[in-house]
Amino acid sequence: MFRHATTVRLYDTDATGALFFAQQFRLAHEACEAFMAAAGFVLPMKPLKAGILLPIVHAEADYTAPLNWGDQVTVEVQPGRVGTTSFVLKYRFCKAGDTLAGTAQTVHVAVSRKTGRPVHLPDALRAVLTASGRRKA
Amino acid sequence: MFRHATTVRLYDTDATGALFFAQQFRLAHEACEAFMAAAGFVLPMKPLKAGILLPIVHAEADYTAPLNWGDQVTVEVQPGRVGTTSFVLKYRFCKAGDTLAGTAQTVHVAVSRKTGRPVHLPDALRAVLTASGRRKA
Amino acid sequence: MFRHATTVRLYDTDATGALFFAQQFRLAHEACEAFMAAAGFVLPMKPLKAGILLPIVHAEADYTAPLNWGDQVTVEVQPGRVGTTSFVLKYRFCKAGDTLAGTAQTVHVAVSRKTGRPVHLPDALRAVLTASGRRKA
Amino acid sequence: MFRHATTVRLYDTDATGALFFAQQFRLAHEACEAFMAAAGFVLPMKPLKAGILLPIVHAEADYTAPLNWGDQVTVEVQPGRVGTTSFVLKYRFCKAGDTLAGTAQTVHVAVSRKTGRPVHLPDALRAVLTASGRRKA
Repeated sequence: MFRHATTVRLYDTDATGALFFAQQFRLAHEACEAFMAAAGFVLPMKPLKAGILLPIVHAEADYTAPLNWGDQVTVEVQPGRVGTTSFVLKYRFCKAGDTLAGTAQTVHVAVSRKTGRPVHLPDALRAVLTASGRRKA
Repeated sequence: MFRHATTVRLYDTDATGALFFAQQFRLAHEACEAFMAAAGFVLPMKPLKAGILLPIVHAEADYTAPLNWGDQVTVEVQPGRVGTTSFVLKYRFCKAGDTLAGTAQTVHVAVSRKTGRPVHLPDALRAVLTASGRRKA
Repeated sequence: MFRHATTVRLYDTDATGALFFAQQFRLAHEACEAFMAAAGFVLPMKPLKAGILLPIVHAEADYTAPLNWGDQVTVEVQPGRVGTTSFVLKYRFCKAGDTLAGTAQTVHVAVSRKTGRPVHLPDALRAVLTASGRRKA
Repeated sequence: MFRHATTVRLYDTDATGALFFAQQFRLAHEACEAFMAAAGFVLPMKPLKAGILLPIVHAEADYTAPLNWGDQVTVEVQPGRVGTTSFVLKYRFCKAGDTLAGTAQTVHVAVSRKTGRPVHLPDALRAVLTASGRRKA
């Protein structure tokens, strides 16, 4: 499982004092980019060279405990279902003492930059997603 | 059904050319605040006076068609399930010609500002949520 | 002088309770886009058709009074110096009762999309910027 | 001089393909928080304990070269003028090969949380700001 360390910054919070809910998706995407880079599939160049985009077609998050300004957060990233043209990334947000603060998932589809239509996941990406699966086991 | 007109701004988009997925939640919250204000339950003063916060405990979105810089968007807001201490808001994002670009929903819980524990939805808020339901019928 | 009405949303604020300073630039850009659109120079299509980009090369802001969640804000937009290849936009942020909350300015340069080099401001844009100047007088 | 390493993420960019100008202030604040933490003046607890807030009263930035999605950026942070109740932080944004991409500065004032009026910078903060000055020499 891939772990990305980050910090809740002032701009992630709102006037209620805690993380603004949509910023959990910012943290998820930061972790997603770090996960891809760590596995050698560096965004945005790798998909660009493969002639694809990886738009998100579904996103969801749960909020379990407040995240506050200055909190050190570990984001765990783990691939979920890997299909022919799409894949799922799952995220867990843990703060100090391993308290679960929330979870998220994003569903990505590989589409051709030329036609905009779904295409097979490139092998290099599939390797990243299934290697992680194996590392987990 | 409540409709909120807005525009996709440059800062909502990313280098892929379209809306960054988390910004759809920004648009949802803008529409949520407009919906509440239009119904007389003006954030943040009304919940403050009632001694409550309305944190989001779940959020999700689907992305159907790209939203681009400059797109005029109508966000339809409609309450979903209204429980004792929680409620759901549903959003549809339509662009010119009524093309559905995406949907979202947020689940809110009423919690006491003092204790942080769930409390009954204030009557004024329940009225807003169920009146909208009736308007829909 | 062009006036754009907007509202400080929850996501504009931070845990200190007021507007996060960088969000004043978000509000400025929202007002900039509204100003251009009102004058018929609709972003992003007009500059695209003219083969130019209008990147910001300098931005600054002053913060005079706090802006809080829910504040109704009027953003006044007024062109400043209009040069051969660049122009200045000035912004004033006023809240209820005409209290000045802050100011900002952005300096834009017209550059060719092909070469990335500065080019003359298109006439249509120059007309927008100097017409506003005249309206002011 | 303090150096903070960061990465331009997808959400920092806009449809023009490069960094949205206001995000340079996000990066500045990230570096500011890292600078303070590295010097032992951890936000937000240290100012909280001192009974103060440190709002920004002026911010400005220059944009010299485009920052793109995936760019590794080093943000150099250096205190500028340190007054009785206020101080300046200066930032330089360098990308690979030490290309200067931009600069920024923020002016902060110490205000009492109770009265909202300017107060003397706490000694612990003054030490952080002047120690850095000395390290520079």
